[in-house]
Amino acid sequence: MRLLDNINSPSDLKKLSIEELPRLAQEIRDEIIETVSCVGGHLAPSLGVVELAIAIHYCLDAPKDKLIWDVGHQAYAHKLLTGRREKFKTLRQFGGISGFPNRNESPYDTFTTGHGSTSISTALGLACSRDLRNEYCKVVAVIGDASLGGGMAFEALNHAGHIKKSLIVILNDNEMSISRSVGALSRYLNRIITAPIYNRIRKDVENLLKRVPRFGFRVIRAARRLEEGLKNLLVPGILFEELGFRYFGPIDGHDIGAIISTLQNILKLDEPVFLHVVTKKGKGYLHAESLPEKFHGVGSFDISTGTKKCIIPEGSTQSEMTFTKAFSEKIVELARTNERIVAITAAMPEGTGLDRFAKEFPERFFDVGMAEGHAVGFSAGLAQGGLIPVVCIYSTFLQRSYDQIIHDVSLQNLHVVLMLDRSGLVGEDGPTHHGIFDIAYLRSLPNLAIMAPRDEIELKEMIGFAISYDGPIAIRYPRGGSFYSNRLELERFPRQEIRFGCGEVLKEGRDLAIFALGYMVYPCLEAGLILREEGIDCAIINARFARPLDRELILEISKRVGMVFTAEEGILEGGFGSSILELFEKENVKTPVKRIGLDSRFFEHGMREFLLDRYGLSSKKIADFIKEIYIYAKNKD
Amino acid sequence: MRLLDNINSPSDLKKLSIEELPRLAQEIRDEIIETVSCVGGHLAPSLGVVELAIAIHYCLDAPKDKLIWDVGHQAYAHKLLTGRREKFKTLRQFGGISGFPNRNESPYDTFTTGHGSTSISTALGLACSRDLRNEYCKVVAVIGDASLGGGMAFEALNHAGHIKKSLIVILNDNEMSISRSVGALSRYLNRIITAPIYNRIRKDVENLLKRVPRFGFRVIRAARRLEEGLKNLLVPGILFEELGFRYFGPIDGHDIGAIISTLQNILKLDEPVFLHVVTKKGKGYLHAESLPEKFHGVGSFDISTGTKKCIIPEGSTQSEMTFTKAFSEKIVELARTNERIVAITAAMPEGTGLDRFAKEFPERFFDVGMAEGHAVGFSAGLAQGGLIPVVCIYSTFLQRSYDQIIHDVSLQNLHVVLMLDRSGLVGEDGPTHHGIFDIAYLRSLPNLAIMAPRDEIELKEMIGFAISYDGPIAIRYPRGGSFYSNRLELERFPRQEIRFGCGEVLKEGRDLAIFALGYMVYPCLEAGLILREEGIDCAIINARFARPLDRELILEISKRVGMVFTAEEGILEGGFGSSILELFEKENVKTPVKRIGLDSRFFEHGMREFLLDRYGLSSKKIADFIKEIYIYAKNKD
Repeated sequence: MRLLDNINSPSDLKKLSIEELPRLAQEIRDEIIETVSCVGGHLAPSLGVVELAIAIHYCLDAPKDKLIWDVGHQAYAHKLLTGRREKFKTLRQFGGISGFPNRNESPYDTFTTGHGSTSISTALGLACSRDLRNEYCKVVAVIGDASLGGGMAFEALNHAGHIKKSLIVILNDNEMSISRSVGALSRYLNRIITAPIYNRIRKDVENLLKRVPRFGFRVIRAARRLEEGLKNLLVPGILFEELGFRYFGPIDGHDIGAIISTLQNILKLDEPVFLHVVTKKGKGYLHAESLPEKFHGVGSFDISTGTKKCIIPEGSTQSEMTFTKAFSEKIVELARTNERIVAITAAMPEGTGLDRFAKEFPERFFDVGMAEGHAVGFSAGLAQGGLIPVVCIYSTFLQRSYDQIIHDVSLQNLHVVLMLDRSGLVGEDGPTHHGIFDIAYLRSLPNLAIMAPRDEIELKEMIGFAISYDGPIAIRYPRGGSFYSNRLELERFPRQEIRFGCGEVLKEGRDLAIFALGYMVYPCLEAGLILREEGIDCAIINARFARPLDRELILEISKRVGMVFTAEEGILEGGFGSSILELFEKENVKTPVKRIGLDSRFFEHGMREFLLDRYGLSSKKIADFIKEIYIYAKNKD
Repeated sequence: MRLLDNINSPSDLKKLSIEELPRLAQEIRDEIIETVSCVGGHLAPSLGVVELAIAIHYCLDAPKDKLIWDVGHQAYAHKLLTGRREKFKTLRQFGGISGFPNRNESPYDTFTTGHGSTSISTALGLACSRDLRNEYCKVVAVIGDASLGGGMAFEALNHAGHIKKSLIVILNDNEMSISRSVGALSRYLNRIITAPIYNRIRKDVENLLKRVPRFGFRVIRAARRLEEGLKNLLVPGILFEELGFRYFGPIDGHDIGAIISTLQNILKLDEPVFLHVVTKKGKGYLHAESLPEKFHGVGSFDISTGTKKCIIPEGSTQSEMTFTKAFSEKIVELARTNERIVAITAAMPEGTGLDRFAKEFPERFFDVGMAEGHAVGFSAGLAQGGLIPVVCIYSTFLQRSYDQIIHDVSLQNLHVVLMLDRSGLVGEDGPTHHGIFDIAYLRSLPNLAIMAPRDEIELKEMIGFAISYDGPIAIRYPRGGSFYSNRLELERFPRQEIRFGCGEVLKEGRDLAIFALGYMVYPCLEAGLILREEGIDCAIINARFARPLDRELILEISKRVGMVFTAEEGILEGGFGSSILELFEKENVKTPVKRIGLDSRFFEHGMREFLLDRYGLSSKKIADFIKEIYIYAKNKD
């Protein structure tokens, strides 16, 4: 019988003795490895904080006490301890539990998270509201060293250290297990752990003072003042002390007993506390320990070998090539002949495919850490200096750079290439990670061109185009590969060269026209085949540019057909289809338009293709929608 | 003859002896005070850095060397020294020189700025491109202590200290002259200056070591190691040293000789350097020195008394009441009876009108410093804790919080009230400050309601509504007061109660309908009067909600008229009018729509009313536009 099987809430956890907790930790680890090996997920981060999660729930009185996990991809142990043991097998699957904390899932999930560096702000808000409402509870934020480098975390530390609310920030420092450290702050944390110069000096001072002759008033006075001053200066973590926090640590994040006794002491304090805990990413699973980056987020894998299980879901239309891979190859190829190309990522060298670039051009590669605002501002500086910066940030995280895109790129009209990977529905990571707002938020920015490729080959061409273009330009493309369909295999869709602001007519048609953007092009082509069988003849146009629109082409085709459809994988409000409505308004075009895309709402987690179909963006759903509207309109005429 | 009159570029400056520079500083100060007293501007910040600007240009070789002024509101002396002496009288006026650095204005303005905390990112980008291109130049960023608290500045420091490029960051610390300090970092800077504990300790150590008996190998060894360690620890600015910068300072920012000699030494270094300069805001003008916040940004004033010159421009339609004042009064009134209301600002207590609230409810007021991202994330925490946070951020700066609005407010569906002051065209501050993107960037966010009041009275009602509403809600309103018109005085426009998602019909009309948002309501009403004289009968509707739209009302009215117009003070692409196009698309409404608003471009500086008219948003321009289109359409029928 497992200890874990009796734990339905943190109060059950408290019935265990501290001596039993390591066994529980092992059971939780096994459960996490087992489940993630089947369904995929954020393995290494969650394995790293098993003891920390146990210790926190052992000491806190959640959900009365508030616990915020920064980013939240490390919260699996937390989920297992807070009543979701039985549902854990449904992790990240549609209808199952989320891979991140989610307010709607459990009262123990204080906040729905997914983006980094937010936890201290949330925690400080909770602490202030607690005090103003004369309530009593503890507020704890757990933040990783990477998230701590994000500007928002610093802003929150700066504020919290100033107003001195009772608040515990636990730094989950897993720097030691990752080869590459990003940022001066990470180096600093590393120094605290690896080169305890402070401790050495502290001993030196003690020795020195011991040896100072016990006479001479001025010597003694000087020594005392020195000791007093040094007490403030020689603690590790002086940086956090200077920001108004009391610093504790570093302590071993896998020693449950040590964490518990430290936490118990800290919980008595009534001020901002910074607890520095050192953990190992992937702890307890050797493959993950040795390759923590590979095992950060994984698909299903074989537990004994750690190798990827190649299960392509039934009916999957994903090809082996992905947009990310295509980008990864092309940018290296272009950089070989164009020395001005530099690449920037915000802590995502693998995810964005820039790892290849980094290997071949280390001097021209910049990983700025989880600092999207700086990433774009920095790139603007690079462009101003005469280079061609290619900035790779997931669509959802680029929301962090919004002002910099406006103020530092669009206003200066600089040649910065924004690569928006993971645009559209990303799948299992859910609502915090879907990149569905980008067309709407970028489309109104002056000077900025926005492209979206129909497939990997076109993405490569677009990158080439963006590099040769001279101005701010963004390319959005989804996770995974382009839409694959046996039916389309038989058809031929010749490729036209990319020209600025020009779309590509893939198929002429008499009855109606579909202007499809990016990934939507192939589903629309297949929808066209379905509709042909119903006797509806569709023109299909690859829009290529969400901005500027191919005005002439759109107007010309609109004159020839009875109806225009638009298709985009993004929020409809203010999106690509909306820009065609605007064009028609300006040009007094009367052809009716119907838009296909996502309604303004957040979308849950689930397989990407499942979600696309569910929300109307599969070829069948598109065909159904068009057919219904077209026939209704025809009957009305 | 003034020294200044011979300075047409920094090379002329270098012909002067260091002894002559204080006289030049005085002349520059006089020129700035004289000009700003006439045309208004950022007086106190610019007066504070006169010596610093002179010293920098004395030492640098600009424009070959690159100089970035963070925010840029302190760059008047820089402008006077770099060839814009004669044009200086045109400061901030349409067609004249900008109040901020502007790339298009001068090669000495490396970057167009206006938002804070960006300079180190830009400078680091320039430094990296310099090195990759094997060029040689110095890169200097000048950043104020307030800007340094912004997360982006920290992200850039963290990156710069890590990659160790040659780069000089000059901290213009004018903390001392502002009563209120915000943030732990500011306190820390204050400690460096006011309580030189480090220096005291350093002396103690020296004394102690002097007195240690000169025998005893272990003592000597310990003492040496201690001295070595302390050398690293006891410098002031250890926080910056820990982040990888060499710290120099603090030095007196009004001692030109001291700055020059320090800069000359620093310029020889080939690593990231942090120079801490202490200045006094408003230096040299007594009224500004004693009230630096009042004289931060001012309109025209009387030099001898420092009092505001009440010149209301001819034909001005501004009333004495402003939207900001109305908000300021109302939020205090509401907070008296509703204890859950708290208010948050990002370093703008006066500008947003929250100073009154802060005075009456200091415990419920939070100034988080120039940290817009944290401001919104923190507010989400406050809301989650059961309070009603009212977050006041200028529209243009709220772009900094975009991801937090999505991830921390909209996704959690929390009751956070966003007050977007300075929405629309702000006037003299120009392109970096116009709040013209907000409708477009907020409109696609799930759960978020967006309102805009026609005047101050309606703003007050809307605030009351937003407080009683339970969900994310934003109110946008412009700088200054509502549109005032003698013609409208005679008409009566009864007020209807605010109801969620409902507009207000102000005038029925037969021929066409104008759906006007916010400030545009009164110009549209006046346009209606003008059009009535031409025999065109307009229905005028105050939309009130940019989202959700008043679906029933809009559809019902659209059926009755031949044409629909929309009017908004914001970018048309993806804006309010666009949402009506979307509604008509969904509902198959055939009534033609024409949108009135701003084209997607950046707008220069100039008086707000002048710009409104120039870009088609005055009542006359609106009437002309509608008339032309209406008559054209009628003739076509």
